[in-house]
Amino acid sequence: MRFNPIKTRVMEPGEDILEFIISQCEIEDKALLFISTKLFSYSENRFLDCHTKAELKKIAKSEAERFYDGTLVDLSLKKGLLVANSGVDESNSMQGTVVLWPKDPQKSLDELHKNLKFKLGIKNLGLVMVDTICNPLRDGVSGAAVCVSGFEIIDSKIGKKDIYGRELKFAKINVGDSLAATANYLMGEADEKTPLVIAKDTNVKFRDTYYNSIEKVSMQPEDCMFAPIFKF
Amino acid sequence: MRFNPIKTRVMEPGEDILEFIISQCEIEDKALLFISTKLFSYSENRFLDCHTKAELKKIAKSEAERFYDGTLVDLSLKKGLLVANSGVDESNSMQGTVVLWPKDPQKSLDELHKNLKFKLGIKNLGLVMVDTICNPLRDGVSGAAVCVSGFEIIDSKIGKKDIYGRELKFAKINVGDSLAATANYLMGEADEKTPLVIAKDTNVKFRDTYYNSIEKVSMQPEDCMFAPIFKF
Repeated sequence: MRFNPIKTRVMEPGEDILEFIISQCEIEDKALLFISTKLFSYSENRFLDCHTKAELKKIAKSEAERFYDGTLVDLSLKKGLLVANSGVDESNSMQGTVVLWPKDPQKSLDELHKNLKFKLGIKNLGLVMVDTICNPLRDGVSGAAVCVSGFEIIDSKIGKKDIYGRELKFAKINVGDSLAATANYLMGEADEKTPLVIAKDTNVKFRDTYYNSIEKVSMQPEDCMFAPIFKF
Repeated sequence: MRFNPIKTRVMEPGEDILEFIISQCEIEDKALLFISTKLFSYSENRFLDCHTKAELKKIAKSEAERFYDGTLVDLSLKKGLLVANSGVDESNSMQGTVVLWPKDPQKSLDELHKNLKFKLGIKNLGLVMVDTICNPLRDGVSGAAVCVSGFEIIDSKIGKKDIYGRELKFAKINVGDSLAATANYLMGEADEKTPLVIAKDTNVKFRDTYYNSIEKVSMQPEDCMFAPIFKF
């Protein structure tokens, strides 16, 4: 499997994301294209004026499905992910502003997927919208898939056998998060200007029909392995 | 960046891990080698007889630093990671047994690192011990670094600038977890017999001296972004 990070120019607010991506990289059949959430935010002009911590908190709260006051950052549940400040971010936003997540990530990604496939004339294409997450009790950030389009986000091994022939009961792999973590590392967190990563030979299962990948990987707190230590 | 999964034969319990690895793959200078935790467990003969759910729970409890009863699985804190059943696993263990994590993962990995470098005569080599984890509220498993050796597990961007020249205050990247997630996807969860993955062009910071990578990335619950929803 190969990951190829793509350095780009800085996108202008409101710029068309399809034209931007086509102008910055070459995409072949069976590629996975990882796209920073920020690129959609820029394209959809998701900036808000913000000058104080209190303003930031108010915006983050209004963006959250669930919101929990923290010390360094506030924690929010947003589209199935537990993220800092609802993804509302000061970094890589213009001075005096913050940048918000795209309004409907799955819809934006599916639309881009449809348009990219048509424009490029390719049959198999996977898209992953990537953002930064934290893992519980771990220092240093990692990455996750906000949503995916064009391939199966879950690879189920249930019913398959282990090396001793024992049937697996629980094993499902979150393909989106597993690969987004590396893409996010390659994108960086500072002035790398690398909002795109292309991966080849990923062995994912491509699909032609659209589905809600956010719903597919979202769990209710009570069904989650972390249920014993979470208070929701 | 390239990830190359290595199919191997099944290791015999008690087999020397250094000789096994050298016989199964070629490692060049500046490579990152991802190794499934299970390979260390096999090599260290970490099997225990186990026939019932109650026995499994007892073993998992004795292996945990903190232990929380769950419904489908029990949750444990183990070497800085929140994992199912303290990493005690029925899958890919012989019938009637479970397999435990290596006794001292960092020590085992550092020793292998020293011996591999000496045997291969290479200067820069990174090792990552990889295991499966879950992310909160996410269906499907992902992977994390139990520990690393030979490179910096954290890449700090603090003090660096974003694209608008704003100084970053919090950005540290967990390089180990970010890359282990993809390696774990390539290793699979069933009978893939792929306990090794080699990555090249990873751009990690190699280092000559040994350090405790587990301590480096472990956070106290109160310092963690998830503090507002933890009940510890």
